[in-house]
Amino acid sequence: MPRKALLVILDGAGDRANRELDYKTPLQYARTPNLDSLARKSMVGLMDPIAPGIRAGSDTSHLNILGYDPYKVYTGRGPFEAAGLDMELEPGDIAFRCNFATVDDNLVVKDRRAGRIKEGTHELAQALNGLKIEDVEFFVKEGVEHRAALVMRGPGLIPFVSDVDPHGTGLKIHDAMPLKEEAEKTARLLNLFVRKSYEILKEHPVNKEREKEGLLPANILLPRGAGMAPHMEKFSAKYRMKGACVVGTPLIRGICKMAGIEPIDFPGATGSYDTDMKGKFRHAVEALKTHDFVLVNIKAPDIAGHDMLPKKKVEVMERIDEAVGYLLKILPEDVALIITADHSTPCTVGDHSGDPVPILVYASDSRREGTEFNEIACARGSLRIKGSDIMSIVLNITNRAEKFGA
Amino acid sequence: MPRKALLVILDGAGDRANRELDYKTPLQYARTPNLDSLARKSMVGLMDPIAPGIRAGSDTSHLNILGYDPYKVYTGRGPFEAAGLDMELEPGDIAFRCNFATVDDNLVVKDRRAGRIKEGTHELAQALNGLKIEDVEFFVKEGVEHRAALVMRGPGLIPFVSDVDPHGTGLKIHDAMPLKEEAEKTARLLNLFVRKSYEILKEHPVNKEREKEGLLPANILLPRGAGMAPHMEKFSAKYRMKGACVVGTPLIRGICKMAGIEPIDFPGATGSYDTDMKGKFRHAVEALKTHDFVLVNIKAPDIAGHDMLPKKKVEVMERIDEAVGYLLKILPEDVALIITADHSTPCTVGDHSGDPVPILVYASDSRREGTEFNEIACARGSLRIKGSDIMSIVLNITNRAEKFGA
Repeated sequence: MPRKALLVILDGAGDRANRELDYKTPLQYARTPNLDSLARKSMVGLMDPIAPGIRAGSDTSHLNILGYDPYKVYTGRGPFEAAGLDMELEPGDIAFRCNFATVDDNLVVKDRRAGRIKEGTHELAQALNGLKIEDVEFFVKEGVEHRAALVMRGPGLIPFVSDVDPHGTGLKIHDAMPLKEEAEKTARLLNLFVRKSYEILKEHPVNKEREKEGLLPANILLPRGAGMAPHMEKFSAKYRMKGACVVGTPLIRGICKMAGIEPIDFPGATGSYDTDMKGKFRHAVEALKTHDFVLVNIKAPDIAGHDMLPKKKVEVMERIDEAVGYLLKILPEDVALIITADHSTPCTVGDHSGDPVPILVYASDSRREGTEFNEIACARGSLRIKGSDIMSIVLNITNRAEKFGA
Repeated sequence: MPRKALLVILDGAGDRANRELDYKTPLQYARTPNLDSLARKSMVGLMDPIAPGIRAGSDTSHLNILGYDPYKVYTGRGPFEAAGLDMELEPGDIAFRCNFATVDDNLVVKDRRAGRIKEGTHELAQALNGLKIEDVEFFVKEGVEHRAALVMRGPGLIPFVSDVDPHGTGLKIHDAMPLKEEAEKTARLLNLFVRKSYEILKEHPVNKEREKEGLLPANILLPRGAGMAPHMEKFSAKYRMKGACVVGTPLIRGICKMAGIEPIDFPGATGSYDTDMKGKFRHAVEALKTHDFVLVNIKAPDIAGHDMLPKKKVEVMERIDEAVGYLLKILPEDVALIITADHSTPCTVGDHSGDPVPILVYASDSRREGTEFNEIACARGSLRIKGSDIMSIVLNITNRAEKFGA
């Protein structure tokens, strides 16, 4: 009988030896009885999200884990951010992350976040959305606070252009530069659009109102992170499983959307320290009633790694373990459960590293070989895989794999 | 000094946690003192027959283990079945497994096995062998009972055609359909041949005699499992080792034949539960006098897995262990001994799975690192390989590998 599968990604959970933790990793140091007891009923091992030593981003890792070769589909995070804001993308579209920002008359940045504007960005985005320059259409959608995404659609566009965002205040906005000769058109039209955004936004009633209230106007759109929307075979066609995801960050949400994996949104999935982990698991178990495969991403360990706070990361892991205990109570029997990370974010580094991450693969008949769930104990197990192997392993443990041969 | 090598494939020996076995695998649960003592003198580890999670067939796995990339040489089992019946194949031939079957005047199947016909199939095959339709020749050879193989030879043939065998009684035979446009000729001539087989066989004296005796006539040949005979470099040229095999199943025998590995046939190698394991080992040791490399396949564990009988599989493993004890007594010193499986056939699944299999590599000077021979204990060893790595490891441990570099 084919099983359903729940894949839990503990974002950035892998780590290195931290002196503050007696040279243990946070996962080693943390008290995680539920994860450990699960490991004892599971196949365990280590995974290189991309390949040994390769420092994966969360985006490239999630793509690889879901079976989409990031070296083929990933040119920048723009398209996935745009998809994460529910923009409809077509293969070949060029997309950017953007900030609504404040510039002066000389286009010098006064505030990259327009005073962390909270309201009115929908109207501002609408004022730019659908503009056409030459044969290229521009689509804009607002995100949370000052964040937005921009999509360019038209012939002859490629994503190899530099950022308009100068990444600092007191600096004039940059002209997007073509990084390849064929990107001249993309860069030229993007620069025209950015200037046009200033002409339109500086006169917009939302900004006039803000200025009246003494707030910084959101008078320009600053794009960065260009990427081309790839063709991605639908997850359901690739694996014959209907997929859902419960993730808090727009980037991962966008990757899932581009793959045809349905996002289950709920207010507690914040993608931060205070994320409602049990709520995520509850929604995931609910989604398993109507879907064959559910991906959950828990962002908190990554944040602790970026913040270089090993003790905080230990605390996060213990909170995750408690939520896993809750999950094990509500998870239907005979769902396969895979727990791993998308990359390591060592507290000693404060950023992603290329160290492998632990993985466990549980089903009612999985080989029982683990002892504890951490980087050191899992290395004794049978799995020594790459991110790109996970979906084959999911299809195998759910008894859904096609036999190759007789 | 170069050594000789004996490669023992315990077909389908890998398994998962079985509740009836206290959540152990059959290999974990079984008492296997000889295999365990051998493991303690061996390098051990795990092998993915093809790649992590991939559900290998016995055919694709044996090909990969012998160093022939199944993604290149395998289009279907037909050619290997035909070779297993000692048919001579040329690269480009299209071959099929067939049943002699019984159909009525409307070509509706009355019995897919023609009453499990035991005698006279040689004469029936001869009546079809050598037929020519347009520029394509047809060759037929009988196998055990109702089984046979068909080879098509001629220009413009490709193997992408559906089965003629409807895989059920009371159904009209299917027309082979081209699965690619270029397969139109193959399908059309195959359908003509099948109809011609009916015209010829229904009038054949063997069938007239059967009908007189109240037996079902074997009045049609039903092909299935189309594949193209690949070019395969001879094993002896590839590895500078003269190879032999002791295998009970025609499919694996055919793979060996196609690779130029000489089959050693003897009556006790049945490929079933009652196979004479000690006899197989005795014949293998005998073959090592004249050959450098001998492959033994023991089919019984796979059968127990397909039958979903964990206790039976334990019993099979204990019987294999006893036979290994016998082997160790008669094996000349300084022969390298490699024991592994071609895939897992978990009793919880009843079919092949993509779980990795244990492997041990023994020679008088092999690193001594094992503890027990099973899926869990071997995971602690040094080997974490794919099937395609085995022959390199065989060449290494037999001190035959060419040095790459200086």
